[in-house]
Amino acid sequence: MTTVRVATCQVSPVIGNYKRNLQQVKQSLSDANGLGAEIIVLPELPVSGYAFDNINEARALSENIDGETVSSYISASFNGTTIIGGFCEKGTDGEIYNSAAVVENGRIIDIYRKVHLWGKEQIFFTAGQDPAPVVSTQYGQIGVGICYDIEFPELSRDLTLRGAEILAFPTNWPKSETPAGERPNLHTIAMATARLNRVYVAVSDRSGTERGHEYMGASIVASPDGWSIANSEDNSEFRTIVADCDLDIARDKHLGEMNDILLDRRPELYLKR
Amino acid sequence: MTTVRVATCQVSPVIGNYKRNLQQVKQSLSDANGLGAEIIVLPELPVSGYAFDNINEARALSENIDGETVSSYISASFNGTTIIGGFCEKGTDGEIYNSAAVVENGRIIDIYRKVHLWGKEQIFFTAGQDPAPVVSTQYGQIGVGICYDIEFPELSRDLTLRGAEILAFPTNWPKSETPAGERPNLHTIAMATARLNRVYVAVSDRSGTERGHEYMGASIVASPDGWSIANSEDNSEFRTIVADCDLDIARDKHLGEMNDILLDRRPELYLKR
Repeated sequence: MTTVRVATCQVSPVIGNYKRNLQQVKQSLSDANGLGAEIIVLPELPVSGYAFDNINEARALSENIDGETVSSYISASFNGTTIIGGFCEKGTDGEIYNSAAVVENGRIIDIYRKVHLWGKEQIFFTAGQDPAPVVSTQYGQIGVGICYDIEFPELSRDLTLRGAEILAFPTNWPKSETPAGERPNLHTIAMATARLNRVYVAVSDRSGTERGHEYMGASIVASPDGWSIANSEDNSEFRTIVADCDLDIARDKHLGEMNDILLDRRPELYLKR
Repeated sequence: MTTVRVATCQVSPVIGNYKRNLQQVKQSLSDANGLGAEIIVLPELPVSGYAFDNINEARALSENIDGETVSSYISASFNGTTIIGGFCEKGTDGEIYNSAAVVENGRIIDIYRKVHLWGKEQIFFTAGQDPAPVVSTQYGQIGVGICYDIEFPELSRDLTLRGAEILAFPTNWPKSETPAGERPNLHTIAMATARLNRVYVAVSDRSGTERGHEYMGASIVASPDGWSIANSEDNSEFRTIVADCDLDIARDKHLGEMNDILLDRRPELYLKR
């Protein structure tokens, strides 16, 4: 059994409160550490905030990979955690990206630039030109996407086929109405994604309200069987949840005694891609 | 607005009770007709039963496309309904297939042979060699899969990319434990499949117990927003549910004001298929 403790950290950034936002992130990382987390997933853009007014604002809040946001991840990783967290990236090419850093043992081991941009992100950001990565970390193979990426089953399947055991999605999910008695749609998507790929899915969602935009605070860790093993749904300022994930389960693609969800595929019969 | 009324019909066949099973199917078709259904989805193998002991039994219970099962669909379709229902097909090639017929106006318009075989089906059946179809019916474009097919997001996506507005899944879902307060995993998968493809998903599941195997009776019609608009979860002998589906919604792939879930795809960045 290869069990790792995964945390998702809810924060509630507000544009223009850079110091407060950064402090929230540092506090969350400390909370997750206190809960024994080995892998910590933070939301999308947790320090810059999300609801930019214009591209100049996005540019002003962007940071190089050695900026304070990623530096806070690096500092927190010296205690043995692997951290996946969003940041507003100022690329060396001058472009602004909606990115996630994967950090462990005091160094950056990967940067992912979001490839499916949501809403006005298309104005503020340049879309990533590289595939979402599967990162070999000290705790296992972690596939990384950001928010809207989870709505592309092709991306989750691709990460799974490339060996991901956990899919980590830093997320800022806009608030939408959930019918009485139902889980938020983000939970449903995460649970089905986990089940259909037999991987763990860890979505770290933000909360709070920014310029009139509300967010869900609907983080979840779903098991390869498709059930929630930790989740939240509230709009509080902070909320860190943890779940123990046995990666042996995610490496075994059997379903029942006679099936294997990857070997059973019939790619020659899926006509369009 | 192009609204069609979709029914799913739960039945509880038992191997060896061919006449009773056929009578249940005819009764269900009549019930659905009474509820004003225009499209009717029946479970997988509703007349042969499912839990075969051996291949000879499957062969003995198989029928040509002009057998009594498909004939019962044809008879029921003269009143203007489109029917998608399973049957144990004896192919003209001598092979046995786990198939679904699509029937309307007194004639067969398509036959689909299940391409992903579950469990012991691999002993009893030959896997289909043709892609799951998108059938142009009088009520819209219907993509057809059978049971375990729904666990392949590639198949649902392919049907969507080929124009399906409703995905119909005749199903026999083995009973499994559902944690308290959760929907059956079949519902979660159907709802996420609907949401991620912005199509209607109509799963017609069987109920009952056969040779010790229990089934879920967890039919559902999910909307393109990913919510249940009709569902059941009980083990009663019969249960027909209906939902009105506005196909204009399924034809519109916009999500929010600036996104389109199909145009936003980045196929060049999904490395494995």
